Formats: sequence, C-alpha cells, structure tokens
Amino acid sequence: MIASPRASVLLSGGLDSATVLAIARADGFECHCLTVDYGQRHRVEVDAAARVAAALGAASHRLVRLDLRAIGGSALTAGIEVPHGAEPSRSGVPVTYVPARNTVLLALLLGHAEVLGAADLFIGANAVDYSGYPDCRPAFLAAFTELANLATVAGAERGERFRVHAPLLELSKAEIIRRGVSLGIDYSLTHSCYDPTPDGGACGDCDACTLRRRGFVAAGVPDPTRYGQPKTE
Amino acid sequence: MIASPRASVLLSGGLDSATVLAIARADGFECHCLTVDYGQRHRVEVDAAARVAAALGAASHRLVRLDLRAIGGSALTAGIEVPHGAEPSRSGVPVTYVPARNTVLLALLLGHAEVLGAADLFIGANAVDYSGYPDCRPAFLAAFTELANLATVAGAERGERFRVHAPLLELSKAEIIRRGVSLGIDYSLTHSCYDPTPDGGACGDCDACTLRRRGFVAAGVPDPTRYGQPKTE
Repeated sequence: MIASPRASVLLSGGLDSATVLAIARADGFECHCLTVDYGQRHRVEVDAAARVAAALGAASHRLVRLDLRAIGGSALTAGIEVPHGAEPSRSGVPVTYVPARNTVLLALLLGHAEVLGAADLFIGANAVDYSGYPDCRPAFLAAFTELANLATVAGAERGERFRVHAPLLELSKAEIIRRGVSLGIDYSLTHSCYDPTPDGGACGDCDACTLRRRGFVAAGVPDPTRYGQPKTE
Repeated sequence: MIASPRASVLLSGGLDSATVLAIARADGFECHCLTVDYGQRHRVEVDAAARVAAALGAASHRLVRLDLRAIGGSALTAGIEVPHGAEPSRSGVPVTYVPARNTVLLALLLGHAEVLGAADLFIGANAVDYSGYPDCRPAFLAAFTELANLATVAGAERGERFRVHAPLLELSKAEIIRRGVSLGIDYSLTHSCYDPTPDGGACGDCDACTLRRRGFVAAGVPDPTRYGQPKTE
C-alpha cells in the first residue's frame, strides 16, 4: 500500500480555505493544516478553523501566532474601521488589504511543509472576488513557487519541486460553494465575517459577508451562516 | 532640502545586522528597523536589538512576535540540542537551520516596508559563513526581489521597484567586523550566541560564538564580547 502524499494546507476557518481542504482531501492528499492567527479582529475564525480541520479529516492542525498589528496598515489588524453596507470593492485595493499578507502566509506554509516533508502547498487565493489584491494573482503564485524551490533545503539541496495549488483561483464565490457542497462540506462550520457581532455571529454586511451571502444566492444553495445580533451603540 | 529615502532594516541584535544598519545609515537612508522574535531561545538578542537601534540612530524600531515553535524543526526554536565545541559546519545544513526562515523574515520586512513607503530592504544574509543555508544565496535574494514586486500594491499597482540589499553577502566575518569598526559600531552592544549563559553572557563555544571569536581574531580587533559564566549542571 502506497502512503498518500502529504500536503500543507493554509486554513483560515473561512468558506474558501475549507473548500480548499476538501479539494486537497478529494485529490488524495494527507492534509496537514496551518492556521495563522495574525492578530486579526475575528478570533472566532481561528475557532472555526479547528472545527473545519476536524470535520474534513485533516491529519494535523497547527496554529502559528504572528502579531501583525506591530506592522499595521490594514483594517483587519490596525485600528482602521471595517466598511459596512458598502458595495464590495471591485477595483482598487480594499482597506482590508494586509501588507504582504499572502507572502507571509505562504512563507510560513513553506516552513510547515518543509518540516513535514510535503511538496504540495494549498492556498485559497482567488483572483475573481479579490481582484484588488496583488498577492492573489497567478504571477505572484508562480513567483512564490520559484522562490520556494530556492529557499529550502528540500528544493535547493535535494532538487524537490514545490507546487503551490490555488484551486479556487478562477472560481466565483457561487462556483466555490457548489464545489464545496458537492464535496459534502457543512459551511455552517465556517466563518467569513470581518467584523463579527458580540455573540460571535456574522455581521451580514461587511465585504466578506456580502460576497458570501450573494454567493449562496447565486449558487442556489440555502445559506447556513449564523448571522448575529447587531451591536447596540 | 531633500528627505532621505527610507529603508526597512532587519535587525536581530547580532553583529551582522548591526553592521547592516550602520551601512544603511552611512548610505544615507532613514532607517526603520524590524526585529522578529520567532521564539528563539536567546531572548537576550531581542534586548540587544533595541540597544543597537538606539545607538546607531534608527528612525524607528518595531518588534513582531512570531511563534515558530509551532512549526518546529530547528535547534533554535524546537527542543533540539545546540551543538557546543564542535567545528562549525562548513558544508551541509546546520541543525540551527530554521525552515524557510529568511523567506518568512523577508516577507515580514516587505510588509513593514510597504506600510512605511520604503523601497529598500536590508538584510544581513551572508553566503560565506552560512554556506549551508539555501536562503542566504544570491539566487534566493534575486527571486525574493521578483516576488516583492509582484506581491505588493507598491510594486504591482504603482510600478515601484523594491531592492533587497545584502551588503554582507560576500564578506568574511573579519571583513564584516572591520567594516563595522570603521563605521564606529560598539560591538559590545550586540549579541550573537545561540545559547547564552544564565547571566545573559555568551557561551563562547556554540557555532555563532566560535565564528564571532575567530572573526575578531582574524580582524585584529579586540573582542568586546561579554562571555558569561558557564552553566553548572
């Protein structure tokens, strides 16, 4: 019996990365998940990641804490207000952009993969809904793959080739949801909201909630998201 | 009067990165330092970084905490013994190799630079004493520069070009020390030891101490390092 190849999967606890984990499992990988808590406001997302890893049969799940607030520059980590009720930005860079985020996350995922002996990295980067993020583009992912092969003992010394998989790259939110439902994901376990309510529910009208809600509508799938009670001022 | 261009300088508190900061200052940059505490054993190095930043006129100094122990795989972050009294490794990868370390550190430095509007990144990578580390090689640094220009809003949207400076890359330890002394660095402020004694002094015989001691001898410069009292078993 041949052992399954190992994959290192970046898991945020959101809808996208849960779908990536299900795809990696369906592709036959033994999946080792890494969640990075980079000081984002929504710690509830980290709890969601643990639920998702367990539900989708991950072989291991590790949490790395990284306090990106010391660098700042983003509404997700600094004291900048998250926009509510606005049309999700389709051009330009959203204020929720975290400087060099995917570079940092992929670098950590690469270290995780090297320790595990995994050559396959999975990330939920998406070029459709997040067109404003430069680090969600195919050219960025190709450049990171080049870097990975030079950065590591596995790549530079032993000639192993890393592969960065971004299976959601060209999918709309509705297509992601339909794919995940076909793989049996219970999306009520996932959390996408940038600004959860005090009871841990989704706010329903930040960019992430709006994209997610519209995705379920467009996919023709009932939305299992638990929306919370709004804050009282 | 033209403002000095900003540089983002990775500062560990060791001899090499202190020299890099002095070089960047001498090159006319307004230097903003970033120290990453990645759970290494020698927290005394983080204190050294603060002393060095102040002494060498850094414009700012930020500390990012990143718990790499969750990933493991290195004697500097996991429960692996640091070798003492052995000949420093000249080939092969030392056990003190941290998986994807320079990729992670440069990714954080890139985020720091983007927030500051700095296009120049300085790192103390060295290909002479650390020949076993793939992420200290020119090809790695060139690949990271490519990545930086694709990863960021500054690079991908505004066409700014990042530059990764590794001014120590081809220097021996003795050459680094002579360069630093010529720039007026007080190396007693710096800390290199992988395994400091309980009183915060240098152990004198780990790989880092051995390379450092030999460097001062070869440079013909008195060694100002404070060596500590050895541990009693």
